[in-house]
Parts: sequence; structure tokens; C-alpha cells
Amino acid sequence: MNDLFGYALRLGDDALIAAQRTGEWIAAAPQLEEDVALGNIALDQLGQARALLQYAGEVEGAGRTEDDLAYFRDERDFRNAQLVELPNGDFAHTIAKLLYFATYQHLLYEELRSSTDETLAGVAGKAVKEVAYHVDHATQWVLRLGDGTEESHRRMQDGLDASWPYTAELFATDYLVLRLPGVAVDPSTLEDAWLRRVMQVIDESTCIRPESAYQHSGGRDGRHTEHLGYLLAELQHVARSHPGATW
Amino acid sequence: MNDLFGYALRLGDDALIAAQRTGEWIAAAPQLEEDVALGNIALDQLGQARALLQYAGEVEGAGRTEDDLAYFRDERDFRNAQLVELPNGDFAHTIAKLLYFATYQHLLYEELRSSTDETLAGVAGKAVKEVAYHVDHATQWVLRLGDGTEESHRRMQDGLDASWPYTAELFATDYLVLRLPGVAVDPSTLEDAWLRRVMQVIDESTCIRPESAYQHSGGRDGRHTEHLGYLLAELQHVARSHPGATW
Repeated sequence: MNDLFGYALRLGDDALIAAQRTGEWIAAAPQLEEDVALGNIALDQLGQARALLQYAGEVEGAGRTEDDLAYFRDERDFRNAQLVELPNGDFAHTIAKLLYFATYQHLLYEELRSSTDETLAGVAGKAVKEVAYHVDHATQWVLRLGDGTEESHRRMQDGLDASWPYTAELFATDYLVLRLPGVAVDPSTLEDAWLRRVMQVIDESTCIRPESAYQHSGGRDGRHTEHLGYLLAELQHVARSHPGATW
Repeated sequence: MNDLFGYALRLGDDALIAAQRTGEWIAAAPQLEEDVALGNIALDQLGQARALLQYAGEVEGAGRTEDDLAYFRDERDFRNAQLVELPNGDFAHTIAKLLYFATYQHLLYEELRSSTDETLAGVAGKAVKEVAYHVDHATQWVLRLGDGTEESHRRMQDGLDASWPYTAELFATDYLVLRLPGVAVDPSTLEDAWLRRVMQVIDESTCIRPESAYQHSGGRDGRHTEHLGYLLAELQHVARSHPGATW
């Protein structure tokens, strides 16, 4: 696999799968205002996914469009981190995942703006502003729930704990990244800053740092939780039931 | 029931239920570009719903917010036309419904801009621009599918036929509207223009005018299809599982 293709795919898959999960809230958030906010976040993520997967298709040079990559790959060919495929859970779980993921994306895109690959640098330059809003939105909710009622505090802590074992995967270096110096961002260089930023929010929310002995991984190699298959069934079934349709 | 409350509620419910259905496509459109387009349309509709339901709550004067009205009313208290609660069906069905509904909304909001009620006039002034885009989007798709392959033509005609029996309800006058002269738009005055606009698109798409001996109605009186209950379960379950939660 072409390394640059693989890298663009990985970033695009993160955004795509995150967008699907966030979009599920459009019908189910606890406030209409929040429906709108999460809907906008989902559309930002989807826009990033489109740009990245379109570029992956170009780089691959096999004539695949972003739609081919989104709708006609099988589960094992997806390269997203497992964090973004986890089910939404309750609202606090979703907010915790958004805090973790958007903070990671923000640090990543900040660096990627200086990539020697002009397309990736361009995508990152636009996305970093969108993601700054996502971080801010998640932060406001973690503070509000964590420092709210006894019940909201408990649920926020549960949310922070539940997806914590899936965060280390975001920062794992691999050979693909190392073979693209100047182009790709080595995610391991982002972990310290991520931990500082996330912990500042968690501390201020009066929640405590989650702990976990085990950290999940495998998404970058196509090993996924059982949840991705269901998500893909939902995402892909319309396109697959009419392959080659000219709509 | 306060007439102005009832009128704002009716308009708001149309937008709210339409937004839920449109939003379901965020995870399931046949193209990523279309995911984004339908997602944006859903957010427009949701924004209109918020503004209208917030105003309904103010006018009622019983302290209910837009969230109370969206999440804590029962099915019989919803006043949306049945058209917007119908299941999405396939993509062509969704596009047909969008053509019917957005064309109606466009004509309605055009008139409502001159309402003597300044709030309704203001909401309409903003919404009319959004809805013009919805009409245009639906139109492009009806033409593309109707005048496309034999299969896409067949599906487009099916879509147009399927929801046609639910369109007459949009134009039914009732006493509520008649008791609000200058404030509300009498929907029966919109029907001719609606039919001209819709038929122009249908003709150009090479589809034919749907026919139906029976026209459904009842939504404005709280009588709904069996589909609304499932939609509301989805929409309301998070808010209802934590009534009074301070998030």
C-alpha cells in the first residue's frame, strides 16, 4: 500500500466514523440546541472525511473516489482508531469521547498545517478551526456536567472512564508514519500536550483522572471492535444496494 | 388553546418532524456529498423548529421552553402534517417528499414575511432563504433521477406517487387560521402556485403527475400515522429518561 494513501486513509477514516457516530445524535440529543451543535460538528467531521478520502483516492491512482472508499471497503480495510467507532452511550459518554478525539485532532491538525504535502496542509488549515470549536464545545459540557449535580458528576466520570482505554491508540507510532517524514505527524509527539490539555479540563470539572491497566489497539491495522460492522452496515447499505447507480 | 400558540406550534412541528426524518440520512445517503447536503437541510429545519417552538412557548405563557414542547408532548399533541412523519423510504422517496414539503414551505414563508406578527415575519424572512435552497436541491435530484436511467426513473416516479396522497393536507384551511387574519397564512391560497411549481419539475423530469383517489389528513388535529410514535420515541427518549436534568 502506498504510504501517503495509507496516511490520508487513516485520517479520513477517523473523521468519517466519528461523523457517523456524532450524526446519530441529530435525532436524540437532550436539547434542540444540542441537536444543532452536534449536527454541525458531525458535518464538520464529514467534510474533513470527504477531503481526506478524496485525496487518498487521488494518491492511490486506481480511480477510486471518496464514495468508493467510504461505501465499498470492508471492515478490515478501515484504518480508524477504535475510539471513534465505539457506540455513543449516554450523552456524557459522547461528550467524553468528543473531548478526547477533538483535542487529539486539534493537536494533529495544528502540526499538519506545516506538512510538506500541500493538500494535507490545506485540509489541516481549514479543519483546525472547526476542531477548535469541537474542543470548546466538549470542554463546556465536561465542566457543566462534572461540576453539576451529584448525578451528572457521576455520569461524566463514567463517560470519561469508559473510553479512556481507547485513547492510547491515537498516539501509537508505526512504520507508516515514520516513512513519511515531513509529510505525516508522528502522533507520539502529541501525547504529552494532549494529556495536559485533557487533564486540565478533567481537573477543573472536579472529575478525576481515569485509569486503566489495559489499552485497546488494532484499528490502524484493520482490527476493530464488533461495533464497526454495524456502523458500516448502516453507512453503506444504500450505496451497496445500488452499486454503480448514476445518482 | 391560544390561537397564536397553536399556529406557531403547527409550523414548528412541521419543521421539527421534517428535521428528524432528514437527519436520519446523515448516516445513510448514497454519496458523502449528499450526506452533507441533507445534513445541512436537517439543521436548517431544526433551526426553524427551535425558533417557532420557542415562540410558541412564549406566546402560551405557561413557562414551557422549546425543549419542553419538543420532548414532553405526547403524539396526540403534535400538530405536524402527516407528510413529514412518513418514513424516509428510499432516496427517491425522500427527494419527492422534500420537493413537496420545501415548495410548500417556500410559498408559506414568502407570505408569512408580511405577517403582522413581527416574530413570525422575522422567522419567515430567514427561513425563506434556507428553504429556497431545499427546493433547488430537491429539484436537481428529481430531474437527475427522473430523466436518468430506466431504473432511476421508475424509482423517482414511485417516490412521487407514494407521498402524493399526503400533500393535500398541507393546504387545508381550518378555523385556527381563519381566526388569525393578517397573522397566519391561509394555506389554501398557496395550493395553485404549489401545483404549478411542482408540476413544472415533474414534467421536466419526464415523470407524470401522480394521482390518488384518497387524500390523508388529520395531522393538524393530532391524528397521526403509526410512524410518528416511533419517531417520537427516538426523539424524546434521552430527554425523558432524565426529566428536569440540568444539562
